[in-house]
Amino acid sequence: MRLAPLIAVLVSLAAAAPAAAVEPTPRVRMDYRVEVVTSQVSTPWAIAFLPDGTMLVTEKGGTLRRLTRAGVLSAPITGVPAVSTAGQGGLLDVAVHPNFSSNRFIYLTYSAAGTGGTGTVLARAKLSADFKSLTGRVTMFTQAPRYSNSSNHYGSRIVLDGQGYIYVSLGDRAQYPPTDTAQRLNNHVGKVIRITEGAALPPDNPFYNTPNAYRANYTYGHRNPQGIALHPTTGEIWEIEHGPLGGDELNILKPGANYGWPVVSWGRNYDGTPVGTGQTSAPGMTASIFHWDPVIAPGGMTFYTSNAFPRWKGNLFIAGLRSMALVRLTLDGNRVVSEERLLTERGQRLRDVQVGPDGYLYVATDASPGQILRVVPTP
Amino acid sequence: MRLAPLIAVLVSLAAAAPAAAVEPTPRVRMDYRVEVVTSQVSTPWAIAFLPDGTMLVTEKGGTLRRLTRAGVLSAPITGVPAVSTAGQGGLLDVAVHPNFSSNRFIYLTYSAAGTGGTGTVLARAKLSADFKSLTGRVTMFTQAPRYSNSSNHYGSRIVLDGQGYIYVSLGDRAQYPPTDTAQRLNNHVGKVIRITEGAALPPDNPFYNTPNAYRANYTYGHRNPQGIALHPTTGEIWEIEHGPLGGDELNILKPGANYGWPVVSWGRNYDGTPVGTGQTSAPGMTASIFHWDPVIAPGGMTFYTSNAFPRWKGNLFIAGLRSMALVRLTLDGNRVVSEERLLTERGQRLRDVQVGPDGYLYVATDASPGQILRVVPTP
Repeated sequence: MRLAPLIAVLVSLAAAAPAAAVEPTPRVRMDYRVEVVTSQVSTPWAIAFLPDGTMLVTEKGGTLRRLTRAGVLSAPITGVPAVSTAGQGGLLDVAVHPNFSSNRFIYLTYSAAGTGGTGTVLARAKLSADFKSLTGRVTMFTQAPRYSNSSNHYGSRIVLDGQGYIYVSLGDRAQYPPTDTAQRLNNHVGKVIRITEGAALPPDNPFYNTPNAYRANYTYGHRNPQGIALHPTTGEIWEIEHGPLGGDELNILKPGANYGWPVVSWGRNYDGTPVGTGQTSAPGMTASIFHWDPVIAPGGMTFYTSNAFPRWKGNLFIAGLRSMALVRLTLDGNRVVSEERLLTERGQRLRDVQVGPDGYLYVATDASPGQILRVVPTP
Repeated sequence: MRLAPLIAVLVSLAAAAPAAAVEPTPRVRMDYRVEVVTSQVSTPWAIAFLPDGTMLVTEKGGTLRRLTRAGVLSAPITGVPAVSTAGQGGLLDVAVHPNFSSNRFIYLTYSAAGTGGTGTVLARAKLSADFKSLTGRVTMFTQAPRYSNSSNHYGSRIVLDGQGYIYVSLGDRAQYPPTDTAQRLNNHVGKVIRITEGAALPPDNPFYNTPNAYRANYTYGHRNPQGIALHPTTGEIWEIEHGPLGGDELNILKPGANYGWPVVSWGRNYDGTPVGTGQTSAPGMTASIFHWDPVIAPGGMTFYTSNAFPRWKGNLFIAGLRSMALVRLTLDGNRVVSEERLLTERGQRLRDVQVGPDGYLYVATDASPGQILRVVPTP
């Protein structure tokens, strides 16, 4: 009934130009707009919301700042650890404890130099009441071994599951030709690890009783996972990683599972040669649920559970670097049933995406100076 | 080992510019080129290969031509039925019998006027030995009822399964607001039908013994299916249809299954209001395996099983109109595990895609004059 005028127009158009195969598909209504919260951040790597609605933003160069939704950016918060900024290293992820209001705990990952080279570190600290300094910083976890021949593929993202466990994704440190390190359990390379909030090794970790295995390891066979997120209803950890040429993967993490790198992959080595066996799957290796060829080069990701965009509820959003897109996946259980790419008109490499308490999407661009964007519904 | 020089360069770049978060992801090698076979076709709708490697091409205005791979286009083949070209109507699909070499049978779908309005018709004819004329044309099937208030949503694609059965996809004839016709079985509207090569109604059709049901009906609840294809190993018919705003669907057809239109949909009506119940699924209705929002507006599709593009073996290719893309889906059984859009740089609406005996992809553009394109691997 409400369509009658539109249809009348379409029918009359069709009648006037009978040879044209006009599909009655008007342009999709643009139901969001993009606001620039700030253009004053330097290579932002991660965004995390505090209970008061302000954000913590990491800058790759080694600074942590607080940003209000109105765009007021603080001076660097003091007490941040020294980081190694070569290559892909620097101050990486930031996470806020679910009980931050009472314990003031925040978590950081970063690449740091030590004996033997650089590696990814997880630290916890308290954010002072005036938001200006970190105090009581403790190192929770250090990736082993360190590497001196690479400053790439550090990972890393942090998830606190609210049940007392912390997950951190760790890269394969970009060894070429690929070694089998990510397939072996006696290291933290190409792994997602799981520890307790007290930095202990949980006895129910899948390799806790496996001889010679590092007990923190939760899943293995990863290449460079820069996004992990807690599924809002299943409680599973979903993980996304940079693959080789044509091999970015979205995985659902199962304790002890092997995700195949560098034995099987949907992609190829950068010179076009096959990865490992040249196959996309193998017995005992867990298949990705979606992959990208060409790659999107995924940064952070988040499940959307808010009400501001009703049509996007339950969707998974991924920040894309090379793809210069905010990738939106519609899910049906553990299946990806639709993909859309947003913000492509901006032409910006995107490093992280988070949902604010307002239900809007906040996106960090990979640039210096870089931006924090806000995706807001339009009426 | 072969990567060593590249890595050396990347590492030195990283060292020279430590603050830049350089991902070592060189551009994906372009491994195909596009050749224009002809620019002299008028709104081509379908391509079908003959055993000699030449093509039959339908033109929406009502002509059928033969096209060589070298680009030589014949005069119109005589004996083509009269078609109704208003709106989306015209000469639509063409298919070649698997035993064409002995029986010379080709099949056409088209919209034609009759008592009550226009509807989709399937005809069979013999192509003469000199390829210049159709003879012995018989009408195999006529969609019922006809409609006089719409010249849209005719479908239609033809599949011959090589087992003696013919499948034809039929649209919902674009009634607004959507009626429940596609949900009722006493018509051919919004259906895929199945008949024998002798134009008989197969007793094993799912509704053959259902009171008041049209016996040709194989699946129902479709909107405007313009692509169907025979899966090369399972023998199932896969179907793709134009949904409403944000609701294009890829389905695997199961005999007697209901695909939900217009009760459930991933999309919305063009005015943004919900379709039917406003839900994406309902008991008794079969879910699509993938959908698009925004829509791609799918034309024809084909499974790729040739060797010319080894990496694309087993992929599903879809011609996209509004999306102006050749959509490539990677499959893992009945799951879509990756999507890529090709040919987007050309900015052309694409109506059909077929694989030639050379293993190359042939694509029809939706324009007048239009083109037949060939996608060829590059060394």
